[in-house]
Amino acid sequence: MSHEGIIEYLNQYITLNEEEKETVRKNSVVKEFPKGTMLLRQGEVAQESFMVLKGLIRVYHTRDGNEKTTDIFTEYHPFTPASYVTKTPSEVSIVCEEDCVLFLESMEKTQELFNSVPRLVEIGHLISSDLMAKQQVQYMDFKNLSPLERYQKLLETRPELVHRVKQYHLASYLGVKPETLSRIRKKISIHPGIS
Amino acid sequence: MSHEGIIEYLNQYITLNEEEKETVRKNSVVKEFPKGTMLLRQGEVAQESFMVLKGLIRVYHTRDGNEKTTDIFTEYHPFTPASYVTKTPSEVSIVCEEDCVLFLESMEKTQELFNSVPRLVEIGHLISSDLMAKQQVQYMDFKNLSPLERYQKLLETRPELVHRVKQYHLASYLGVKPETLSRIRKKISIHPGIS
Repeated sequence: MSHEGIIEYLNQYITLNEEEKETVRKNSVVKEFPKGTMLLRQGEVAQESFMVLKGLIRVYHTRDGNEKTTDIFTEYHPFTPASYVTKTPSEVSIVCEEDCVLFLESMEKTQELFNSVPRLVEIGHLISSDLMAKQQVQYMDFKNLSPLERYQKLLETRPELVHRVKQYHLASYLGVKPETLSRIRKKISIHPGIS
Repeated sequence: MSHEGIIEYLNQYITLNEEEKETVRKNSVVKEFPKGTMLLRQGEVAQESFMVLKGLIRVYHTRDGNEKTTDIFTEYHPFTPASYVTKTPSEVSIVCEEDCVLFLESMEKTQELFNSVPRLVEIGHLISSDLMAKQQVQYMDFKNLSPLERYQKLLETRPELVHRVKQYHLASYLGVKPETLSRIRKKISIHPGIS
């Protein structure tokens, strides 16, 4: 079932024939990780890129003992750590905040897949362009929206996070103090249409 | 000369043979734009992605009459607007802040190039991964560094911007008020080692 998740994901970009699907299934690494597993530690070089098939992973940066949540990924969100591309020590750690099923992508496996199904190279290009665009929008939203607007956008686009993520992680992800997030939530529950 | 800039750029990723270089030269669109040219207006769908061969382009977002500079690109920095990938109206405008020579990439031209030099598909993947990683680091720096640290990193990594960009655009790019940037600059000129 889990491997089908990947086929489905790739199907957004390209229609694979049966033989190609089989090759993808054979070459895909899908693993389960219990809640609390560290997938990458800050300072290490990332050897893998991830796609969440089930569960939730959190990306964070630690400095002077303070932790900042930079990203949160749930079902069918891929995440390629910058360190995986640049081969330099990672600025972030990644942890499973729920029991997870993840698709792991490594350079070697990807190269094997590209060799067996050359059409996938083109999808690789599409996927990384897509990720680049999402990253750009995320950066711009963070830069251009007010905390209230960021929370409203979260409610529109990723409402599940409100229940699945600890409030202080969510506050950190939105770039505000936990008290500020509480205030924003109260404000919205009283005046739902506020902006 | 300008076309050689692209060959050089691609050379970081792959060594092209003479025939491939010739194909790239023939299929590359390089154009000059005078200072002040609008390359993309907020609300339009981007038809092109850019690489600066000479000059400086500024990316900004306007809202309620307020303008925020989200990105600045100089020589050999490529910029793919999210709108080019997603085919949705752009959240940003792009303007030439100096006389520019730009390499323009369009979907059609790229497809032609991929058809003539299939090896370039793989480079396309590498380049978009690279851009994705840079975008990620930029987002994280903006989120995790203090204004003073952001300015210090700018001095380390892109010192030329200090002289080539108007101070209020630079302040906006760093996410601070112009007065704050003045204060930071004064602080650093008095205590160069501050952090």
